[in-house]
Amino acid sequence: MTRKPFDTTEQEQKEALYGVSQDTIRALEDALEDGEESQVHHLLAPFHAVDVAVVIEYLSPPLRHTLIEILRPHFDPEILAELNETVREEVMAQLGAREIAEALTGLESDEVVALIEDLDKDQQKEILESIPAPERVIVEEALTYPEDSAARLMQREIVCVPEFWTIADTMQHLSKDTQLPEKFYDLFVVDPKHIPIGGVPLNLLLRHPPSTKITDIMERDIKWIPALMDQEEVAHLFQKYGLVSAPVVNRSNRIIGMITLDDVVDVIDEEAEEDIMRLSRVTESDFYEPLLSTSYSRIRWLVITLFNTLMAALVISQFQHTIQKMVALAVLMPISAAMSGNAGMQVVTVTVRALATRELGGTNMSRAIWKEVLVGLINGVVFGGIMGFIAAFWFADPALGIVLGGALILNMGWAAVGGVVLPIVIDKMGMDPAISAGPFLTTTTDLLSFATFLGFAHLFLV
Amino acid sequence: MTRKPFDTTEQEQKEALYGVSQDTIRALEDALEDGEESQVHHLLAPFHAVDVAVVIEYLSPPLRHTLIEILRPHFDPEILAELNETVREEVMAQLGAREIAEALTGLESDEVVALIEDLDKDQQKEILESIPAPERVIVEEALTYPEDSAARLMQREIVCVPEFWTIADTMQHLSKDTQLPEKFYDLFVVDPKHIPIGGVPLNLLLRHPPSTKITDIMERDIKWIPALMDQEEVAHLFQKYGLVSAPVVNRSNRIIGMITLDDVVDVIDEEAEEDIMRLSRVTESDFYEPLLSTSYSRIRWLVITLFNTLMAALVISQFQHTIQKMVALAVLMPISAAMSGNAGMQVVTVTVRALATRELGGTNMSRAIWKEVLVGLINGVVFGGIMGFIAAFWFADPALGIVLGGALILNMGWAAVGGVVLPIVIDKMGMDPAISAGPFLTTTTDLLSFATFLGFAHLFLV
Repeated sequence: MTRKPFDTTEQEQKEALYGVSQDTIRALEDALEDGEESQVHHLLAPFHAVDVAVVIEYLSPPLRHTLIEILRPHFDPEILAELNETVREEVMAQLGAREIAEALTGLESDEVVALIEDLDKDQQKEILESIPAPERVIVEEALTYPEDSAARLMQREIVCVPEFWTIADTMQHLSKDTQLPEKFYDLFVVDPKHIPIGGVPLNLLLRHPPSTKITDIMERDIKWIPALMDQEEVAHLFQKYGLVSAPVVNRSNRIIGMITLDDVVDVIDEEAEEDIMRLSRVTESDFYEPLLSTSYSRIRWLVITLFNTLMAALVISQFQHTIQKMVALAVLMPISAAMSGNAGMQVVTVTVRALATRELGGTNMSRAIWKEVLVGLINGVVFGGIMGFIAAFWFADPALGIVLGGALILNMGWAAVGGVVLPIVIDKMGMDPAISAGPFLTTTTDLLSFATFLGFAHLFLV
Repeated sequence: MTRKPFDTTEQEQKEALYGVSQDTIRALEDALEDGEESQVHHLLAPFHAVDVAVVIEYLSPPLRHTLIEILRPHFDPEILAELNETVREEVMAQLGAREIAEALTGLESDEVVALIEDLDKDQQKEILESIPAPERVIVEEALTYPEDSAARLMQREIVCVPEFWTIADTMQHLSKDTQLPEKFYDLFVVDPKHIPIGGVPLNLLLRHPPSTKITDIMERDIKWIPALMDQEEVAHLFQKYGLVSAPVVNRSNRIIGMITLDDVVDVIDEEAEEDIMRLSRVTESDFYEPLLSTSYSRIRWLVITLFNTLMAALVISQFQHTIQKMVALAVLMPISAAMSGNAGMQVVTVTVRALATRELGGTNMSRAIWKEVLVGLINGVVFGGIMGFIAAFWFADPALGIVLGGALILNMGWAAVGGVVLPIVIDKMGMDPAISAGPFLTTTTDLLSFATFLGFAHLFLV
């Protein structure tokens, strides 16, 4: 995030152009408190569903409830699609199944799936029963695919043309077809078995003469997305090859839908957010979650810290006599743990990220590990040297400086090795290194730091 | 990142379909070591420039050098565009200015700008002088805009049509224009002053009769991007409104280019990556950076930890007498610092992310702060209670348990307040909270933890 300060007017101009201004929100809050329905409609009229969703999230729960009641008669389903998950559940509970089902008929099938998949089984059933049969079948079929799979992300509405058509045939077909998807950027050319053999960006239709054969202008180098591919894998493919849309195929390679870049953008953002949150031991962005569930989800992670610090305390308690004889040790002992913990987390972050973006693979692993070990040793020597000198002068005891410096070199070396090896091992075991590598590593750096520093002191000083 | 374990064959199938397999890389390494040029060309022939870039990054520096020499005669400029920054600089240095300039003529203007802007002034000048005049002017003009601005991101090649045209006029124009952009998804309708008044997705041209007036099908609700808008702001707009392309306008609102979603995807990923890296005090993904510069960039951040721990040591040293009288204090004193530090970082992460995604704005701030304070107090009471009990039993001293529990409640409360207030204040001051909020907060939690725990102990126990 790089942000520059704006002066107020510029900030306000921006908000007016691209969202809802603070003034509008304040006016809306007043109107809601006074129950002035027509004023509420008037204030929200100029805004896009996205902006209305933002306003709903901003409002305090009682005012939010009032606003939903006012919007209920003509509730725009796009607003539901744009709401944050926690707030969305609240709003859907308030609206009730029948009214939600009615609103959903205004959405495309993939949007309906995205809304319904987050609900619990009972709610899903209730809403599905209120949806008309043809739409219900499509949604139910989509729900049979695993969550986070390409088939959940795709839209079923696609444009396919046979390989023997010309541009003129295609254009004529498009002008007559009333079942076209709402938005599309590419056509797919399919063989008689409905296997996609090429893609045609729409602009190519417009820049060649009508008599051109469609196979002459199609791009043959298309990427098929298997229906069961994980959405993260899909996002990675789109990003890597700069795709705008891609066909989704079933086991027999028949085309069953397509994924477009705008669906993928949300996945990219979601996955990056997950990584950020996990590295800091937060389950997910819990900004709108209620108090107690936020508290609970954070506690789960802090329990790990609790065990970690208790183990550290146990290590320190083994050296109580040593500390009593030389209380300077208590003053200096947090240094090595803090330095190696932070250095290790740097390495973990880089490694987790390199694994996630596939920069780190089979052949370059040993090189990456060696590099981190060397960086760790260099930094260990630098900081061990500095801290050793400071400790030696502070307590007028060169031996104490050497003990601290030695512990730092050893522990920063381990932090580097562990920081790169632990995420790789955890990844190989099929678990998520973004969640577990950090706490696991800092536990080891804490214990090792206290044990080596106090242990060296016990052996050489006291 | 959610990853499941694959069995080897499935993993290998995936690689074969969507990238370069480990076997191919090993075969390539052998061919490079033996200097078998034709074998190298043969192995790389089937791959996309993106994949070749990945291979170049994977290789060890000497083999990378050999490969570049082999590719030199027909170097594909797309490869340069796809390389990681560190490796790209190395490759560009090896190729030399004249050869780079020659390769660049194969790219679109925005790609050339993206490649050149990262170079230092001397290199820029050298390469620009070797580029033919018409292209050079475009690139030089683009470089006058600030880095990370919309104008740097945009492509100058656009399709504009006047408002009185029909679909037939437009299609005829498109079929004749030889200067069309390589890819485009929307046309823009402009008034006589070249101010964009609407956008037309290409699929709309194909589904309406040719006699339709362009103004009848255009979307009027388009978002103008000011040329100087920050790229992060642009990405935010595209994500929020689900845009695929948008016109870029100058100060007088004339259209000067367009930005498409595929350019924005890289920005979204970049910005998320920056946030991740900054929260862990790593300057950027330094995976391919050379040893010493990695070491240096990490040291800069560790120096902050050094000052932090030295200050903590200074606080502890004030209580040396207290510790000597009751050495259990040394055993327990890291607990409060670790718990409040971790709890605070959870809050900082959520707050920084909420600021970055604009979830946190003027009106909901006080509510967010109160919520965090309450969560902090709840968690403080939970963990203060647990730890207090453990300490009381461990050292058979109820008063010691009360002191530890009290310190924990106080410090976890502060961690919650500081975790939400510090990022907001830093953001208001126009600085980046992702960089400075974390270290600033943990410095305060460390100092306060040691001071309160040892201070309470000094007052009530010893």
